[in-house]
Amino acid sequence: MRQNRMILPTLREVPKEAEVTSHKLMLRAGLVRQLVAGVYTYLPLGLRVLKKIENIVREEMNKSGAQELQMSVLQPAELWHETGRWDDYGPELVRLKDRHSRDFVLGPTHEEVITSLIKQEINSYKKLPINVYQIQTKFRDERRPRFGLMRGREFLMKDAYSFHTSYESLSETYDEMYKTYNAIFNRVGLKFRPVQANAGAIGGSGRNHEFMVLADVGEDTIAICDHCDYAANLEQAEAHGAEVAAAGAAPSTEAPAFEKIHTPNTKTIDQLVSTLGLEAQTFFKTLLYVVDDKPVAVVVRGDHEVNELKLKDLFDAKTLELADDATIERVTGAPTGFIGPVGLKNTALVVDKAVAGVQVGVAGANERDYHLQNVVPGRDFALERVADIRNVVEGDTCPSCKEGKIEFYRGIECGHIFELGTKYSVPINATFLDENQKAQTMIMGCYGIGVSRIMSAVLEQSHDDNGIVWPLSIAPFQVHLIPVNVKDETQVKVAEQLYTRLQQQGIEVLMDDRDERAGVKFKDSDLIGLPVRVTVGKMAGDGIVEFKVRQTGESKELTLEQAFEEITGLVLGQ
Amino acid sequence: MRQNRMILPTLREVPKEAEVTSHKLMLRAGLVRQLVAGVYTYLPLGLRVLKKIENIVREEMNKSGAQELQMSVLQPAELWHETGRWDDYGPELVRLKDRHSRDFVLGPTHEEVITSLIKQEINSYKKLPINVYQIQTKFRDERRPRFGLMRGREFLMKDAYSFHTSYESLSETYDEMYKTYNAIFNRVGLKFRPVQANAGAIGGSGRNHEFMVLADVGEDTIAICDHCDYAANLEQAEAHGAEVAAAGAAPSTEAPAFEKIHTPNTKTIDQLVSTLGLEAQTFFKTLLYVVDDKPVAVVVRGDHEVNELKLKDLFDAKTLELADDATIERVTGAPTGFIGPVGLKNTALVVDKAVAGVQVGVAGANERDYHLQNVVPGRDFALERVADIRNVVEGDTCPSCKEGKIEFYRGIECGHIFELGTKYSVPINATFLDENQKAQTMIMGCYGIGVSRIMSAVLEQSHDDNGIVWPLSIAPFQVHLIPVNVKDETQVKVAEQLYTRLQQQGIEVLMDDRDERAGVKFKDSDLIGLPVRVTVGKMAGDGIVEFKVRQTGESKELTLEQAFEEITGLVLGQ
Repeated sequence: MRQNRMILPTLREVPKEAEVTSHKLMLRAGLVRQLVAGVYTYLPLGLRVLKKIENIVREEMNKSGAQELQMSVLQPAELWHETGRWDDYGPELVRLKDRHSRDFVLGPTHEEVITSLIKQEINSYKKLPINVYQIQTKFRDERRPRFGLMRGREFLMKDAYSFHTSYESLSETYDEMYKTYNAIFNRVGLKFRPVQANAGAIGGSGRNHEFMVLADVGEDTIAICDHCDYAANLEQAEAHGAEVAAAGAAPSTEAPAFEKIHTPNTKTIDQLVSTLGLEAQTFFKTLLYVVDDKPVAVVVRGDHEVNELKLKDLFDAKTLELADDATIERVTGAPTGFIGPVGLKNTALVVDKAVAGVQVGVAGANERDYHLQNVVPGRDFALERVADIRNVVEGDTCPSCKEGKIEFYRGIECGHIFELGTKYSVPINATFLDENQKAQTMIMGCYGIGVSRIMSAVLEQSHDDNGIVWPLSIAPFQVHLIPVNVKDETQVKVAEQLYTRLQQQGIEVLMDDRDERAGVKFKDSDLIGLPVRVTVGKMAGDGIVEFKVRQTGESKELTLEQAFEEITGLVLGQ
Repeated sequence: MRQNRMILPTLREVPKEAEVTSHKLMLRAGLVRQLVAGVYTYLPLGLRVLKKIENIVREEMNKSGAQELQMSVLQPAELWHETGRWDDYGPELVRLKDRHSRDFVLGPTHEEVITSLIKQEINSYKKLPINVYQIQTKFRDERRPRFGLMRGREFLMKDAYSFHTSYESLSETYDEMYKTYNAIFNRVGLKFRPVQANAGAIGGSGRNHEFMVLADVGEDTIAICDHCDYAANLEQAEAHGAEVAAAGAAPSTEAPAFEKIHTPNTKTIDQLVSTLGLEAQTFFKTLLYVVDDKPVAVVVRGDHEVNELKLKDLFDAKTLELADDATIERVTGAPTGFIGPVGLKNTALVVDKAVAGVQVGVAGANERDYHLQNVVPGRDFALERVADIRNVVEGDTCPSCKEGKIEFYRGIECGHIFELGTKYSVPINATFLDENQKAQTMIMGCYGIGVSRIMSAVLEQSHDDNGIVWPLSIAPFQVHLIPVNVKDETQVKVAEQLYTRLQQQGIEVLMDDRDERAGVKFKDSDLIGLPVRVTVGKMAGDGIVEFKVRQTGESKELTLEQAFEEITGLVLGQ
């Protein structure tokens, strides 16, 4: 394509609206433009990248045996009432009324629609399992759209749904999708980790993994082992049992009886650490929660944080929140900041495993301005309910290999696979007839990829100070061909010949035929970041051009024939 | 692809919801399923067709030099206020509010968004002209969605927008699009006519053509010459001047003076024809309109209909409607049904050209229960304002070649190209700097194709009693390969070999590997309508298969090698 007439508005200035690198780059390199917050137009260059990612996803999905179909964006509210998601989904669900005042949603996902379709069209075990997918524009009314395509209100998704006669069959397809997702993320050139995750709004019963692209701007924290391939979302990562080896041991008999110490206005661990001069891990941090309307006191080490998800799972609770000040006073008799496990009545008590491993420590006294020292777990408060209820921290032993140490990374969630089970097939009553002509509920899986988000993720990982460094597989063009001076007939002639010849080989070439200064052209070229640049300059008359690889910066002067061979080798030999 | 696991639910029964052939066929052949009125899911077979049409559109648009981009579905209401379309568009515009109560629309077209984008990104004459397009899901809340994909609420469109420094440049791109549209509609295998049309809601100033697919279910009437290539929408078709040759001639002097005849309760032309025993064309049908608040009497021949669009254009009027009974009595002194041009005061008078060509006739007397006979145009009423204000009728002389006769056809509008002019660039203030650094308003064109509607249109034209007959270019698969008995090892082996070999050639094969009776398979095969059917039956052991062409019904027994050659010749030699 010829650059002169292309809508490819590069920017020298960093746009104010952009906070993160990928967003800055996609605006500066003319890939997208914002219409309103979280809603973008893909300019020609950006659309080419998006289509390439889409095609890689499609090829790998087809290879896995999934069938492509296309559902509608508009979904009638009735279906969402059936599954209860009309009420559960909250303000992120885009709702509207048609001219007859009938309620609709703009699909953020399509479990309801596909389950209803499959229920209608498939009724025999002979037709199962199947896995269907679509690549479609989705809508989610984010409270705070940001980071360009990373968190938009209108975005491109691949969503797939599988239907099975058994959990074994679901598990097979899940494994196949796991493999397929790895292939997709490798092909688009991302550094990523499949991560054990929590199901969130989609819900479900079985396994689920997020495919996390590692990048500092990621909104999620991932715990990764430095030794094995263990990786989990922070909220899902299991704390290893090693720290609690002592839990089974007898309580410290060395320690004297606990005693009150005066700690006026000293309510936080930080304040205690600086006042008492002790390490944070010697404190028994105690919080009061209200779990399904009942008070639950929770004890973790002073250097640890409560993991509310684990706590909720422990009680299989519907609701869980921190108690307010009034409730704390009522239950403990003391104001917030002085709560401790010793002598606590009127509430359940849950102790984190790591606390059970502490020999002796400091806790709140359940009395204003007082704490207790020489508190011994198991002696001074009960260890009846000990569980993993904290977030892991860096340096924790890996719960999987038990050798490595946990490290934290930030991740961008670009894919998510779920063993859904019957969460949707039960309310929608999607059944099939088994070998004995008996109706059975279908078992489901679902599998999403954020196609447009991948573009952001790639930009976060693939750039340098001068601009984008596109992976060959999704580069909008493979070659940037630059006649330095378009008023020089020889340069133009040589460039045109190479342009035609490369395109005949099926190579995608962007030719900068603009009448601009060389400096402008090179700066734009670095910014746009195509894998190969060929410069046709002063030596064009001698049949010599400059060949440069964007990623390595490697540059050499070649004859036209050599350049042609280098390019075809690099691009087509991929 | 293997049919057994494919979601391809064929139906024997004609679904009740479907009124027209294309809709019936797309439900019966498992191409689509309705979710709610006017909203469909494309099943795998239907999606393959849609993608093929989409690709043909894309290829031809790219060939024309247009650039593909992708705008959003969500559009902020502010833009629609700027152009006034927020108020003008009516209830077909899908409107919604986001979580912050900000108004949005779901794009039915994108003039506002693209004009606003181009205004931002392009400011020099050097970058013009450009033509950009997208292929995107669009929304229109039809009052009465029907006929399957023909008139849906969610549908796939290709919309293109061009920007120019002059009307000459617009005209060049318009011609290029005209050529491109012809190429597209030819490639998808449609019988169609580009038709002069009226601009409708999109509006504009210059030329515009609808690309009409000829089909009895079409919602538009097209006037087509049986001799030359003249074609126009009924409301746009010009009545030829030949009938008014006599208009310049002296009024009939043969005729006696007009005289009143008693015609009690005879108000319509039909009643007059049967009461007086005269031909309809001898009556001067007179109607009273209110045009921009002023009365206008309009005279057409008894066998003609007033064309309100032509009338409106004649007066360059904002509003036009038939006068109510009270107004008629006030202006003419007589009740509705007895109005005539003779002696009419207090109103403007417009006479259709064809009336001016009548020597003598009958008209209303402007008095209850009376008409006048022996009325002579030019003698008994003024011929000061004579114009073409009627609909053409079948048999009229062609206004273009003046030799052929006009015939009426029904058409499905599948494409529409417009010379928009400055309708959108003026309110949005999209300007460019010309050679003298002076700001000038951009001139625009726009060009739409109903991608999903094309699927319906093809089905209306390409079917027989047994089902669909796909054109090769958009068939979901090119070959239907049918092992008759999947329990016969030889048949399966032969079929599998052919399946693999054809696919290696890049040929798309659907293999019916279902364990069904031969009759069921053949019936489904005819219904699905792939261009070539290869049946592997009892003679498989001798290396003989049946080769059948869906369109011609031509069938022959061939060796595997011959069949392979026939197929590759037919499919790849296209």
